[in-house]
Amino acid sequence: MSRLLPDTVRLDAENGVLLAIDQSKLPNSLELIALKTPEEIRDAIRALKIRGAPAIGVAAAMGYYLAARNGAYPDTDSLTAALKEAKAVLASSRPTAVNLFWALERMDKAFHKHHAAPVGEITEALLAEAGAIRDEDIAACRAIGEHGVKLLKDGCGVLTHCNAGWLAAVRYGTALAPVYLAHEQGVRLKVFAGETRPLLQGARLTAFELSRAGIDVTLIADNMASRVMRNGWVDAVITGCDRVAANGDVCNKVGTSGLAVLAAYYGIPFYVCAPVSTIDPKTPTGAGIPIEERPGSELTELWYREPMTATNVRTYNPSFDVTPRALITAMVTERGILKPPFGMELFL
Amino acid sequence: MSRLLPDTVRLDAENGVLLAIDQSKLPNSLELIALKTPEEIRDAIRALKIRGAPAIGVAAAMGYYLAARNGAYPDTDSLTAALKEAKAVLASSRPTAVNLFWALERMDKAFHKHHAAPVGEITEALLAEAGAIRDEDIAACRAIGEHGVKLLKDGCGVLTHCNAGWLAAVRYGTALAPVYLAHEQGVRLKVFAGETRPLLQGARLTAFELSRAGIDVTLIADNMASRVMRNGWVDAVITGCDRVAANGDVCNKVGTSGLAVLAAYYGIPFYVCAPVSTIDPKTPTGAGIPIEERPGSELTELWYREPMTATNVRTYNPSFDVTPRALITAMVTERGILKPPFGMELFL
Repeated sequence: MSRLLPDTVRLDAENGVLLAIDQSKLPNSLELIALKTPEEIRDAIRALKIRGAPAIGVAAAMGYYLAARNGAYPDTDSLTAALKEAKAVLASSRPTAVNLFWALERMDKAFHKHHAAPVGEITEALLAEAGAIRDEDIAACRAIGEHGVKLLKDGCGVLTHCNAGWLAAVRYGTALAPVYLAHEQGVRLKVFAGETRPLLQGARLTAFELSRAGIDVTLIADNMASRVMRNGWVDAVITGCDRVAANGDVCNKVGTSGLAVLAAYYGIPFYVCAPVSTIDPKTPTGAGIPIEERPGSELTELWYREPMTATNVRTYNPSFDVTPRALITAMVTERGILKPPFGMELFL
Repeated sequence: MSRLLPDTVRLDAENGVLLAIDQSKLPNSLELIALKTPEEIRDAIRALKIRGAPAIGVAAAMGYYLAARNGAYPDTDSLTAALKEAKAVLASSRPTAVNLFWALERMDKAFHKHHAAPVGEITEALLAEAGAIRDEDIAACRAIGEHGVKLLKDGCGVLTHCNAGWLAAVRYGTALAPVYLAHEQGVRLKVFAGETRPLLQGARLTAFELSRAGIDVTLIADNMASRVMRNGWVDAVITGCDRVAANGDVCNKVGTSGLAVLAAYYGIPFYVCAPVSTIDPKTPTGAGIPIEERPGSELTELWYREPMTATNVRTYNPSFDVTPRALITAMVTERGILKPPFGMELFL
């Protein structure tokens, strides 16, 4: 039986809240949380309750709107100050995904465009802009799926990493959009999901959402990718990404660059799926992308409970890595399939 | 403060038991278990209480001896039957490591050599043979360390996988023997230990034993190896192995082949450390090595407790993979450092 999930983030404008699937509770419980303030949204993003570059962007836009909606601002000056503060709070949630900053800039532009209007009208304009960002995300993911599905033949094996699925966007996802479209079209795929240590987004989210949708998915530990490829079971590696540098280098969940090296070694195409909002023209190469490091306890304490190593063992826990453009076979955006060398065509 | 561990497996001939560190309890508790019968030893190996190819071989030899020691055999015929049974039980513990079969063959040969002697004398001969296998393992690991340390410069970074350390042999280990020897000689190393999902031998055992010995060790998730290499922090990858095919292909803990591909990509030497008993002349290439698959629950239930994915998600959980000889820079055995092409020189 095929069951699709509800939207990952949704605005309840009437009650002035953002309703989000609490992804830290998955797969054992599907719960919605209601968030009212920029601080609450920032904390939910930091705790990975809301995660996935596109979903973070949409949530930030909704948070920006809610800051206007939920305050009682006597004049535009106080609203301006509140939105500046809201933007700073939301921008501080996670450093790597560029959609976050992109969405906040768009909201900021909408605000400045309507700056001269009465406060109520500005708020309405911000609601419309947040809604547009959401709608465009859904449409972009759907379009990524429509382009990407052309790369997948009936019966082929697909390996993915982390979760760039339905749960990473509002609907469909990025890397998994072609998989959902294939499923809609009756194209049979065999998906391998790397569990994605330390936080197991592949096990908890990707395997969960695909099996729920009735799609054939096999869970592996990250270190088994080489064996699965050598077995001849993988015809394409597909991942999402958190930021694309101007030269085409891609920053995504740690482990992605290793899969790209393996795919090149085994002669398997390596595809990156992302909306164009993920492309950051201000970052020339992957070397300039800030890489978030998270607490070592994610490695040393199993699920924050049992110590899994000796006390005081040093750790290194980067959340992301950079895949050089030379290892990328194609990038799938809502505008089509881009092939290397990735240069100015990223910005057409 | 530097604290070395006791021997991983030890024979208490007086009481007719094998004393082993229960590795399934590490790092939270250092406990010895006493095993009397071949069945108990087989179960301890299957449950990974005793693990590591060299340690499994020594434990099997000790188990063979104990089968003779602990029975009351009226004549050589009944002893012969009991030892045949013991050998079959011990051989069924794990399929991949060849040291197990090698050690049992040696015990069998010692038995047949003394076949005509009185039962008591045979038992003494078996005790001597098991002791010799143990002593040779300690000496071989020490020699691997002495050869391997020449490959390591002061200040260099070493990445290792799983546990091929003290806990995988009787003492010193294989991959970590050069690290212990470097430490003895005042050569400073920075070791990166991949945690090694699903059973976390890197976190639980390698990080534990190295930090206990006062050696600089940093724990990473397996999927972070590519980033650590790209950072320029790794000057050598060193792993152990469970079986070397006649052509030099190496079978080791799943994930090893991926690290070898990464090392080649980043231009980092990839070394495999093993005693010559790990070389299996009867297996022509890596394709002929049986790969143990373990229960999916190791992936779907976090530490056998909390479900970490949707129910009924399919899994693939191979314990080992094969690294083709072309990716191996050198093999370090107790007889010296072997370089490719690995051909007959493996058997000199």
